[in-house]
Amino acid sequence: MKSRLSLTRYWGRLVMDLVEQLDHIFYPRSIAVVGASANPEKVGFMCVGNLLEAGFGGRVYPVNPGLAQLFGLKAYPSVTAIPGEVDLAMVVIPAELTISTIEECVAKGIKGTVLVSGGFREVGTEIGSDLQAQLKDIANRGGMKIIGPNTLGLINPRAKLNASFQYTLSLSRAGNVAVAAQSGGTTIYLVHALTNHNVGISKAIGLGNRCNLDFDELVTYFGQDRETEVIVLYVEGLEQPQRLIKVARQVTKRKPIVVYKAGRGEEMDRATLSHTGALAGKYELYKTAFNQAGMIMVDDMTELVDVAKALAFQPAAMGDRVAIFSVQAGPGIIMADKCQQLGLRLAQFSPVTRRGLRQLASPLNPVDNPVDLAWKSDEFDACREMLKVVLEDDGVDAITVAAVFYGSNMEVMRAVVDVARDSKKPITVCLDSPGGSAYAEINALEGSCIPTFPLPERAITGLAGLIKYGEILKGGGGGGGIRTHGSGISEQRFSRPSP
Amino acid sequence: MKSRLSLTRYWGRLVMDLVEQLDHIFYPRSIAVVGASANPEKVGFMCVGNLLEAGFGGRVYPVNPGLAQLFGLKAYPSVTAIPGEVDLAMVVIPAELTISTIEECVAKGIKGTVLVSGGFREVGTEIGSDLQAQLKDIANRGGMKIIGPNTLGLINPRAKLNASFQYTLSLSRAGNVAVAAQSGGTTIYLVHALTNHNVGISKAIGLGNRCNLDFDELVTYFGQDRETEVIVLYVEGLEQPQRLIKVARQVTKRKPIVVYKAGRGEEMDRATLSHTGALAGKYELYKTAFNQAGMIMVDDMTELVDVAKALAFQPAAMGDRVAIFSVQAGPGIIMADKCQQLGLRLAQFSPVTRRGLRQLASPLNPVDNPVDLAWKSDEFDACREMLKVVLEDDGVDAITVAAVFYGSNMEVMRAVVDVARDSKKPITVCLDSPGGSAYAEINALEGSCIPTFPLPERAITGLAGLIKYGEILKGGGGGGGIRTHGSGISEQRFSRPSP
Repeated sequence: MKSRLSLTRYWGRLVMDLVEQLDHIFYPRSIAVVGASANPEKVGFMCVGNLLEAGFGGRVYPVNPGLAQLFGLKAYPSVTAIPGEVDLAMVVIPAELTISTIEECVAKGIKGTVLVSGGFREVGTEIGSDLQAQLKDIANRGGMKIIGPNTLGLINPRAKLNASFQYTLSLSRAGNVAVAAQSGGTTIYLVHALTNHNVGISKAIGLGNRCNLDFDELVTYFGQDRETEVIVLYVEGLEQPQRLIKVARQVTKRKPIVVYKAGRGEEMDRATLSHTGALAGKYELYKTAFNQAGMIMVDDMTELVDVAKALAFQPAAMGDRVAIFSVQAGPGIIMADKCQQLGLRLAQFSPVTRRGLRQLASPLNPVDNPVDLAWKSDEFDACREMLKVVLEDDGVDAITVAAVFYGSNMEVMRAVVDVARDSKKPITVCLDSPGGSAYAEINALEGSCIPTFPLPERAITGLAGLIKYGEILKGGGGGGGIRTHGSGISEQRFSRPSP
Repeated sequence: MKSRLSLTRYWGRLVMDLVEQLDHIFYPRSIAVVGASANPEKVGFMCVGNLLEAGFGGRVYPVNPGLAQLFGLKAYPSVTAIPGEVDLAMVVIPAELTISTIEECVAKGIKGTVLVSGGFREVGTEIGSDLQAQLKDIANRGGMKIIGPNTLGLINPRAKLNASFQYTLSLSRAGNVAVAAQSGGTTIYLVHALTNHNVGISKAIGLGNRCNLDFDELVTYFGQDRETEVIVLYVEGLEQPQRLIKVARQVTKRKPIVVYKAGRGEEMDRATLSHTGALAGKYELYKTAFNQAGMIMVDDMTELVDVAKALAFQPAAMGDRVAIFSVQAGPGIIMADKCQQLGLRLAQFSPVTRRGLRQLASPLNPVDNPVDLAWKSDEFDACREMLKVVLEDDGVDAITVAAVFYGSNMEVMRAVVDVARDSKKPITVCLDSPGGSAYAEINALEGSCIPTFPLPERAITGLAGLIKYGEILKGGGGGGGIRTHGSGISEQRFSRPSP
């Protein structure tokens, strides 16, 4: 027993050390940019510019022996010449010059270095791999984390931190979704898409070649990060997948992890190798292992955005029985189609629910699932009561609502906001309009944590993520991403959630 | 021979009559709104308001015996009291009052009536079905088309016509995509989504209960409409699917038809029955028949938008061998994943192409497909030449390009615009940024007919639509929507297109 306790303590201390170190990286008080440049076309210019433009409140030290100042900031010839402490360095210099710089960073006591430069393991040469191995050795001995090399950097919108060369990342909003991706380009596309879908970011980081900072460490960190409630990963290939799987098994009990695993075929194994230097391995092996660890696997980036959005806004569903409300029948049918495609069940209403709906619905409409709100969509009270009756049905686990953006229809959406306040069952909504004309309505819904999706099937994809995470929390989530293949009806059966 | 010629002439005249009649409906010179109302919450108010607000240039006649004027327009007690000719009527009155109104419309010589009112076959009562049957009889005898009942109406952005109760439809732009949908709600979601993806509409129409205007007639009309180059259908169920199939077989030789067939399961057969009164029937039967007729079937609305966008902007591909260009490796890998998922092939470059790329690409990058543009993305000439070398490879049928939105990267996009001018092979692009900050770049691309997509896999979905349509034009397009199931590699092999 004693040794086991010691081991727990030992691991606990390791985690605490890691968290402290990554806090320095995600909440730096001071940042040095090695390779800072006065040429606006150079990455070394953009890195400094982005830090300032995003409103970073700490100290920024441009480092370049040929530079006196940049943006009115005093420049230093080297990291060691900087008078104060430095938490984070960004290094943007040719690969062959990085060894001495990284040694200086270690000597300076810097906790983390974003190594933007490429020319290491990803180029597939012995020289590149050797260089990276040397850097890893130096960093490990000095207790420093290297983010990258061959990376974009990281952002923390809450801390107004954009430690990357990509200025559009400063436009993301603070929120509860953490992103870690093996590709800087994918990080950017993902953050853009999440931002355009009104999903806020807690932290986002491009991991590049993962010199000595890898997915398992980020997941450990995000797992305990109070600002993170959903973790999104883009994984190409891992040398030691079991490390991520082990951590994920624990973290997914508290926070959902949504993963896109890239590299589906043998051809793509080659492509991922030339990218970040890791063998992608067999997709199906990853899929099985990730699923067993409770990670939610998605098939494309759109699904990733939709599932992350739903999880960022709503609680997990405690079963797969979906009730659909639609003011127009067509979108309701599309939603039902998607339920069938994803293996979700259409809820069968109880006699009590049917009687309740019969009293509330228009006599012109049958009482069924999808529930047709036509003729009643302009009556707030009727909509609210219909939603309530269905939410109270023990045979319903999650609901979704579609209403075309149209003046009186928006009473439906007001009713959704009203009932959502007291509901433990998740709700998603389909609402869209050209050029942002439904801005106020979408804002009212999302301000009340009800995620909106622009097309009917995407509101169901969101629900599928919430249902999948409910299965994972119940311990039955293995297999098949958000999709339940085969019969078209999920085999999982769950009891009602305890209050 | 003689009788066959006569039959051709007979059918030709029927088509000409139909076209002339639908021209009156889509390009009316005058419109009567029966049930016009001064109450801004009434549909009869919105219909008149939308006509005026969209800028319709013809005459608008509000019809309501209790109304003297509306929006400054003289109101009439009945359709027959209107002095001039009327091409199109919109009828927004209770179902039980429609018989006499439709009789008056026929007597007035009106060519088409948008019957917005519900309460007919879709409610599932004998009274409702009888009413609709009577209307059909009256309209058929009088040579009038009834759009609906239980419908949204129609738009023709080029004619500044919004003959519907939905004002947001006026925000759509004129373009080359025609939409016909059995659900008004779906029509609205689709037009919103197409508009938000910069896809213009030639005409859009909600067909509702299809009293005596059905899909086959719309497809015939869109098939000869010069302003329509892509036809999009949302189909729930048809009484006589063979009529649509017969027309589609001809039209798809000239214009692509993209279809979402709703109602995937038996439960949804019930839902579609209660909606527009048609049995949805077995999905798989429809799928087979639609595919054989050369229609492109999609699995959801997002796919519908992406395929329609690609077809609206680019020519069909003459084979399924895709070349991917990406400035960042990650998005390129996601694109390759999607190719595999959809059964498209990654092109194998010829030795000439490889040598050409080797000379042009950075020595840090392997020469392979996906082509890695890193280190060269800020060099217009290098990008252009790399694109050209690949476009000239006989083993490449279509290309796609991903570049994160970032100052110097945009040289890649300039190069894409440049080479696209002389290319007969289709090109799609993945480009996005938060809050429309890439507006100018996206505009430059789409102004040159290169469609952009916000996430990597969606640019591939677009290409898959172009490839599928190429297969259909070659006569080998049967089976499986845009997806080629099974081996993951398409079995179709095609020669080069003739110039």
